[in-house]
Amino acid sequence: MAENPRATFLVSAPDQPGLVARLAGFFYARGLNIIDSSTHSDPWAAGGPRFFLRLAVVLDAGNAREELEQSFAALVTTLAGTWSAGYSDRLSRVTILVTREPACLYDLLLRQKMGELACEVPLIIGNRTDLQPVAASFGIPFVEVPMTPQTRAAGEEQMLALIAAHRCDLVVLARYMQILSGEFVARAPVAINIHHGFLPAFQGARPYHQAHERGVKIIGATAHYVTRDLDQGPIIEQDVERVTHQMGPQELARVGRDIERVVLARAVRAHLEHRILLEGRRTMVL
Amino acid sequence: MAENPRATFLVSAPDQPGLVARLAGFFYARGLNIIDSSTHSDPWAAGGPRFFLRLAVVLDAGNAREELEQSFAALVTTLAGTWSAGYSDRLSRVTILVTREPACLYDLLLRQKMGELACEVPLIIGNRTDLQPVAASFGIPFVEVPMTPQTRAAGEEQMLALIAAHRCDLVVLARYMQILSGEFVARAPVAINIHHGFLPAFQGARPYHQAHERGVKIIGATAHYVTRDLDQGPIIEQDVERVTHQMGPQELARVGRDIERVVLARAVRAHLEHRILLEGRRTMVL
Amino acid sequence: MAENPRATFLVSAPDQPGLVARLAGFFYARGLNIIDSSTHSDPWAAGGPRFFLRLAVVLDAGNAREELEQSFAALVTTLAGTWSAGYSDRLSRVTILVTREPACLYDLLLRQKMGELACEVPLIIGNRTDLQPVAASFGIPFVEVPMTPQTRAAGEEQMLALIAAHRCDLVVLARYMQILSGEFVARAPVAINIHHGFLPAFQGARPYHQAHERGVKIIGATAHYVTRDLDQGPIIEQDVERVTHQMGPQELARVGRDIERVVLARAVRAHLEHRILLEGRRTMVL
Amino acid sequence: MAENPRATFLVSAPDQPGLVARLAGFFYARGLNIIDSSTHSDPWAAGGPRFFLRLAVVLDAGNAREELEQSFAALVTTLAGTWSAGYSDRLSRVTILVTREPACLYDLLLRQKMGELACEVPLIIGNRTDLQPVAASFGIPFVEVPMTPQTRAAGEEQMLALIAAHRCDLVVLARYMQILSGEFVARAPVAINIHHGFLPAFQGARPYHQAHERGVKIIGATAHYVTRDLDQGPIIEQDVERVTHQMGPQELARVGRDIERVVLARAVRAHLEHRILLEGRRTMVL
Repeated sequence: MAENPRATFLVSAPDQPGLVARLAGFFYARGLNIIDSSTHSDPWAAGGPRFFLRLAVVLDAGNAREELEQSFAALVTTLAGTWSAGYSDRLSRVTILVTREPACLYDLLLRQKMGELACEVPLIIGNRTDLQPVAASFGIPFVEVPMTPQTRAAGEEQMLALIAAHRCDLVVLARYMQILSGEFVARAPVAINIHHGFLPAFQGARPYHQAHERGVKIIGATAHYVTRDLDQGPIIEQDVERVTHQMGPQELARVGRDIERVVLARAVRAHLEHRILLEGRRTMVL
Repeated sequence: MAENPRATFLVSAPDQPGLVARLAGFFYARGLNIIDSSTHSDPWAAGGPRFFLRLAVVLDAGNAREELEQSFAALVTTLAGTWSAGYSDRLSRVTILVTREPACLYDLLLRQKMGELACEVPLIIGNRTDLQPVAASFGIPFVEVPMTPQTRAAGEEQMLALIAAHRCDLVVLARYMQILSGEFVARAPVAINIHHGFLPAFQGARPYHQAHERGVKIIGATAHYVTRDLDQGPIIEQDVERVTHQMGPQELARVGRDIERVVLARAVRAHLEHRILLEGRRTMVL
Repeated sequence: MAENPRATFLVSAPDQPGLVARLAGFFYARGLNIIDSSTHSDPWAAGGPRFFLRLAVVLDAGNAREELEQSFAALVTTLAGTWSAGYSDRLSRVTILVTREPACLYDLLLRQKMGELACEVPLIIGNRTDLQPVAASFGIPFVEVPMTPQTRAAGEEQMLALIAAHRCDLVVLARYMQILSGEFVARAPVAINIHHGFLPAFQGARPYHQAHERGVKIIGATAHYVTRDLDQGPIIEQDVERVTHQMGPQELARVGRDIERVVLARAVRAHLEHRILLEGRRTMVL
Repeated sequence: MAENPRATFLVSAPDQPGLVARLAGFFYARGLNIIDSSTHSDPWAAGGPRFFLRLAVVLDAGNAREELEQSFAALVTTLAGTWSAGYSDRLSRVTILVTREPACLYDLLLRQKMGELACEVPLIIGNRTDLQPVAASFGIPFVEVPMTPQTRAAGEEQMLALIAAHRCDLVVLARYMQILSGEFVARAPVAINIHHGFLPAFQGARPYHQAHERGVKIIGATAHYVTRDLDQGPIIEQDVERVTHQMGPQELARVGRDIERVVLARAVRAHLEHRILLEGRRTMVL
């Protein structure tokens, strides 16, 4: 017999007495067992102290999700808050964008296959065909959408159509070496990018060359949500590795690749597990 | 005007529906605002799935703590759980035990002075007098209690009397190079020790020599609660540092000292902030 | 035009005056430019202070390697030392042994393909066929050699024959879940294993379960040369990652997989680059 | 009987055949045993490939240092290189500059006392008197040199006079919260500063507030040589620590303090051990 599905609710609301009691009480009154919960009160939020909650419950056959969501929405409205819900039996559908570098793509596909990433990957888009064989070896459709200054607008339209046709709700830029327009960002589903630098240091191009020139002793990578401002989106996850003066830009890139794929995978995983809440351009990973 | 004091409650109970709602509801009904809460459900607990909660509320002048504790105790009893409470205006009183090495002692005293450790340190005991000047420079009484095979029993009695006289509720072994008897451990307040090795590797004496001989590439330190079985108490915190073949035992010890003091301080801080719950010999640091 | 090949010499000798001058002078006298060198004097070596050298030179067309090696051997003999040499145009040939877990295998093959590991992989052997498709997707022959108590002796003979037939000089155990006999270890080329624990803690089976039970706050992985004594071979590389009380054995295993593959790859890379010297059961990675 | 003193030579020269052999041969010819050596060839140096060497020898009573240095200088001149030498029996004399924060000062003084930093500290200068008691508890003279816009020029003159009077050859800025003029930097001995941010991110003031606002997941500290351009000097050492969304600027500062003092101590130690060579604004720590 299959395990019962789980629902995960994320709530953000102005801090006020009784939040935990009222939100937990909502589920208790419906006989739903809370199996995981995490809260955070942020005194530095823009509009005054703000409360964040992640709460997972086990559903059973009798639970009408629509009714549950409507009732929950009504409660959160009285708290002047916002909310979202995810369900363990409704997998996210992910489009992966790639260019030439295979490490992040292999890594995501392997983790998905091993069950580390609870999602489906119905589509991989490349602006070149270099990684088509990787997609093929995992049995995933690959579409080439070239991007030149002349074809960019049409290319982005084509990508939006493909993403919609495959009903994807997440886009992952796995070392996709093209800059997406604000128009694309506004119309596409939420997107996660891996920047091969320890933001906010080394923004822009060739971060490993920048790092080498500046003589830093530690390099890093940053996974962030994609916004209109390049390299300025909310940071989801970062990690670093120690380097030495003996390493040139190529070796920094090699060390960096190991950080990139782990950081990207952790960020995608946190998103898929409905762990991320936003406050301005800071993320709360609960 | 002073800030209102805060109370922190720790609860451990068999997992059951409605725990969060009932526990949070308890404080909501009394008009106490929850400013911080954290839960954990542990499916691997010895007696079946177990629920752990840390919850902090702001008190006000009208709150009678005795009544609050009695009512809360009654609630937790109905849940077949256990609980404890700490108050931000009732500082822990700590006795520090030392021998010869000053780094951990300086570190604890400096952090206490800078407000990083919310406690008082009314007493330092050494089995030698080497660190008396350090105690003096921070204006803290120092008592020498020598420990030889002949004087051990009397020495432990003297320490227990001193700890009681100073009304201490925590003992910190800051590189105290004596083995305490099970009798002492049973009668003394809870105690935290820093082991200069990455437990469970390198138990026993001279861990840096052991680490050098085995040729490990990473060394560490472990802070744990003291139990009758040496080096077997519940681990509170660990950290590590990379080392190379170029380092001899003395250099491993030097690197290790930097880990030891940070790890010990983090563990003491977590204890003082009422963050630690026990399940068998595992700690939950909420 | 191709780059000139490089030779890397490793020397281990009792410490004595003039070692650097005499060894460097040897190559200077032959007009060979030293492009990289590293030395280490180890005062803790078993037989008294010992000197270790790694030294890389650029060869040119006129260099007769046989003559060079003979002359170098004669010099090192006068120093009572031992030596070995590797050449950048003579790639190591590696047999990879696997069972069921794909992460380390994918990782090694991808790095080899991207030029991070200077070797050829003519053969993958599995005691099961689970990973045959991975081998196929990289175009590498896969041979199943089942291992049961009854077939072990014959199986090891078959593996030795395969390794010899493919002229492999390195064996990598990439989560190979079988224990190899002392007989096999003695007759096979040098072998590197990845242990999914932070040795010497958690030797033996199911290290993540051991780690969870002991409640450690950091887990790790260890790459080591394979010797007759299981888990006792010289450690080449280790790394660790912080974990929390929230993670069960399965999540420790997931975190551990990320450490394992990086640690194994670093160890294999150091070996392939002729960076590793042995002193007793310690490695010097120069 | 005292140990023989050691001399450490640092050399930087355009890469050319025979460098190791000729430099090592120099000492061999004089009967001086090399106990430690390290080389690095940097293909990215500004003026073409450059060679860096650190080499330590044991001196004996008969060695006339002046003659040794003159002969070595002559050799390095033929190589178009630069060099410097340090002696284990000639301790560096260090002036420490402080303002208000005690952690780095305590740390440096304690390490010096325990033998981790081979130097003397004859003088501590503060622009305020807050840390005078710390200096006193270690028995070190403390001089207050106030710094206001009006007194800055005179104050810097007074500091230069004090540093000269105490024959100091290194200045350490241990959280000294004043900006030194280019004039001071030019006339003072070499100086090392600790920046409480992971440079080049978060330059300038209040880096922990900047880090909090940007929502980074890792913070760091950077020790660098002081140059006329603030926060732009060659980086000697960096380290980082993971942080969470739960931490406000004050907690980032607390975590940061632990990184700062370790990073500063490592940088000072590397300088005192004559391990640092410069190439443009990159350091080689050999």
